Amino acid sequence: MATNGHLDIIARSAKLFDILYVGIFDNVKKNPIFSLNERQDMLVKLVSQYEHVKVVVHESQLTVHVAKDLGASALVRSVRNGQDLAYESEMCFFNQQMTGIETIVLLANPELQYISSSRIKELAAMGMDVSKWVPALVSDELENKLGRK
Amino acid sequence: MATNGHLDIIARSAKLFDILYVGIFDNVKKNPIFSLNERQDMLVKLVSQYEHVKVVVHESQLTVHVAKDLGASALVRSVRNGQDLAYESEMCFFNQQMTGIETIVLLANPELQYISSSRIKELAAMGMDVSKWVPALVSDELENKLGRK
Amino acid sequence: MATNGHLDIIARSAKLFDILYVGIFDNVKKNPIFSLNERQDMLVKLVSQYEHVKVVVHESQLTVHVAKDLGASALVRSVRNGQDLAYESEMCFFNQQMTGIETIVLLANPELQYISSSRIKELAAMGMDVSKWVPALVSDELENKLGRK
Amino acid sequence: MATNGHLDIIARSAKLFDILYVGIFDNVKKNPIFSLNERQDMLVKLVSQYEHVKVVVHESQLTVHVAKDLGASALVRSVRNGQDLAYESEMCFFNQQMTGIETIVLLANPELQYISSSRIKELAAMGMDVSKWVPALVSDELENKLGRK
Amino acid sequence: MATNGHLDIIARSAKLFDILYVGIFDNVKKNPIFSLNERQDMLVKLVSQYEHVKVVVHESQLTVHVAKDLGASALVRSVRNGQDLAYESEMCFFNQQMTGIETIVLLANPELQYISSSRIKELAAMGMDVSKWVPALVSDELENKLGRK
Amino acid sequence: MATNGHLDIIARSAKLFDILYVGIFDNVKKNPIFSLNERQDMLVKLVSQYEHVKVVVHESQLTVHVAKDLGASALVRSVRNGQDLAYESEMCFFNQQMTGIETIVLLANPELQYISSSRIKELAAMGMDVSKWVPALVSDELENKLGRK
Repeated sequence: MATNGHLDIIARSAKLFDILYVGIFDNVKKNPIFSLNERQDMLVKLVSQYEHVKVVVHESQLTVHVAKDLGASALVRSVRNGQDLAYESEMCFFNQQMTGIETIVLLANPELQYISSSRIKELAAMGMDVSKWVPALVSDELENKLGRK
Repeated sequence: MATNGHLDIIARSAKLFDILYVGIFDNVKKNPIFSLNERQDMLVKLVSQYEHVKVVVHESQLTVHVAKDLGASALVRSVRNGQDLAYESEMCFFNQQMTGIETIVLLANPELQYISSSRIKELAAMGMDVSKWVPALVSDELENKLGRK
Repeated sequence: MATNGHLDIIARSAKLFDILYVGIFDNVKKNPIFSLNERQDMLVKLVSQYEHVKVVVHESQLTVHVAKDLGASALVRSVRNGQDLAYESEMCFFNQQMTGIETIVLLANPELQYISSSRIKELAAMGMDVSKWVPALVSDELENKLGRK
Repeated sequence: MATNGHLDIIARSAKLFDILYVGIFDNVKKNPIFSLNERQDMLVKLVSQYEHVKVVVHESQLTVHVAKDLGASALVRSVRNGQDLAYESEMCFFNQQMTGIETIVLLANPELQYISSSRIKELAAMGMDVSKWVPALVSDELENKLGRK
Repeated sequence: MATNGHLDIIARSAKLFDILYVGIFDNVKKNPIFSLNERQDMLVKLVSQYEHVKVVVHESQLTVHVAKDLGASALVRSVRNGQDLAYESEMCFFNQQMTGIETIVLLANPELQYISSSRIKELAAMGMDVSKWVPALVSDELENKLGRK
Repeated sequence: MATNGHLDIIARSAKLFDILYVGIFDNVKKNPIFSLNERQDMLVKLVSQYEHVKVVVHESQLTVHVAKDLGASALVRSVRNGQDLAYESEMCFFNQQMTGIETIVLLANPELQYISSSRIKELAAMGMDVSKWVPALVSDELENKLGRK
């Protein structure tokens, strides 16, 4: 489920690269509110302003293999603090050794750094108004889904 | 003074961008062993294998303004740990607010992460062999400079 | 289950504010040894020396909403290290944006910083003597509960 | 020299306490642009909206002793990251052992966390417009001081 | 399941102490690919070159109690980053208070720091070649186990 | 100048090794209150209870080379937080590559972790009583030196 944080990283990445793939994973462990199809529909609308940004969906493959198959030269990741950095450093190490694909880190915008989709889903499920932290499209769909409209 | 760490970041960045400028600053506070001209000569040789990598020298301007003048879309920075991240996050914030220029972070190669030019200079000045951590060209010039050849 | 760490934060907070509410949550995920009632009884006894400290119990509400309903101006939280700080910074951000309630951080007493109730429960369940790290009242009730008296 | 970050901490602290002293130190090492008197004048104006906020000036005493003499129960400090936390934890330890005075930490507002007076002074000295990061009053005085008005 | 990271710590520890016990725990939560017996067999072979290194197996006891029973003076632990340090500091505190046994920390070799057995198992289960990160013996047994030989 | 923190690390290390050398460096940058001879005299007295602990003095050599010359197998270092860890990891890397000498890290005792000789000297110079944080011998010599006895 896309947040303002995700869209900020997409917008910043879109300025840097000739083509940008935005991946949606079907992570059932994360107990998603929206189906894979719904998430894809929303994301396609949200990035429709960028001609060179494409949404890709995958299920069981490692991200880095999806990237390899797409001919990508690098993964873009966002980092907020020392814990994120430790995690991304580990992933970067294995991705580079397995495929040679580079990892590019963007530093999270300070104002958006705390907005994670898991926190937003948790707050929305408790009845909070989350429209400050997600695009209007997502906020509306969340309210539909949670039966509050 | 270029180390193997610098060359690794240059090689990795060179794969990602159409044109890469490598900046040399005349930071007298860092008490350099080599003159600005000597550093430029060495670096030009070290990146001569890359057609799209150019060495630029500047003295008193902010890096981000040099980048702006060159038409760069982003600065590339290398990060090793939480302290580096805090520093780069601050610089990224001001650079973005002042010029809109993005900061791209590459994660330091684990094997090279401790190799800083200040540490290398310190060890070389004490008579240590530093050839494991710098290009052969730099190692030779260091020995000439320190009168050990 | 109150530890010496909790009581230290209560004692230090009690000096700073006109009224202090100490919250007990019914977090079934934490698999508590004591029932909510037992925890409340113990805590009421442990803070009985402070006239302006009150124990409040709640189950499903967000802490910050309980605080709002009680007319509190701030939440008091204890921080031990960088990971705690990252977590509290996130919570503080959402609590401020949702309710305007401030978060006040006290720095954990170095001697008490490792004493968490989850660790104490784990050690007690393995038969360790935990009386150095919890009030005598809690230590006694733990032994009763675990059938060792 | 007061920044928007300082004023945010003052505003948030002013809501929490009956009386708040804001200290100005004459730290010659920090090579201040403004004299102690100028800094005091600006700060008095900037906090004039708060009846219970008072500006105090001191030179060679430890902050915690000034606080003790004023009858304060706690110091308010702002923390941004793990390095700040390590520094404040050390100061808190000594201040508590020497005087019993508590340290209260407020978490820096994400949007303001990179705005330090040393960085602002550095940017202003290089001719940058810093009006986004300091109160209008300070911005005007800076321009006067640096002869740009 | 032993990785190159484990063997590096064993080799470095073996140089420092008169006798070194390497512990295998039967942690069912970690969902091991190999049985306790298989893990023991492999580890015994891998440390057979060191006369003073012994493999010990245990199930439900705390590590520090196993160490006490063996007459060990210290536990050896490996640390990679700030999060590891926070965890080991907590364990060290309780181990010292409960038994007086010291904790000795070795700093992970930069090249090996990301190689954890959980990550290796995950990659092997997805069909990746993990022979760069584990001893040949382990790599072979993994392929047997996962039916790829 | 030895603090309670130094003596704790010495006491803990003395239990682990057959012979322990405690090094005193003549670091003029640290602007020492005591001369090298005075520091040596105090330290010799403070470790006199340990037969296998020896005080060594050196000036311009790298610590790791002094250790090598003494036939030491490892350096013992104390770490308190993530910043210390980053620093020691760098030193450990170069020491291992240059000499093969191992670095052993002990985790600072929580109660003593903030007691650095630079902070103690600063507080003593301002007239504070520092006897809680240093051995009585050091406390007395400090008072003599600072003319307060």
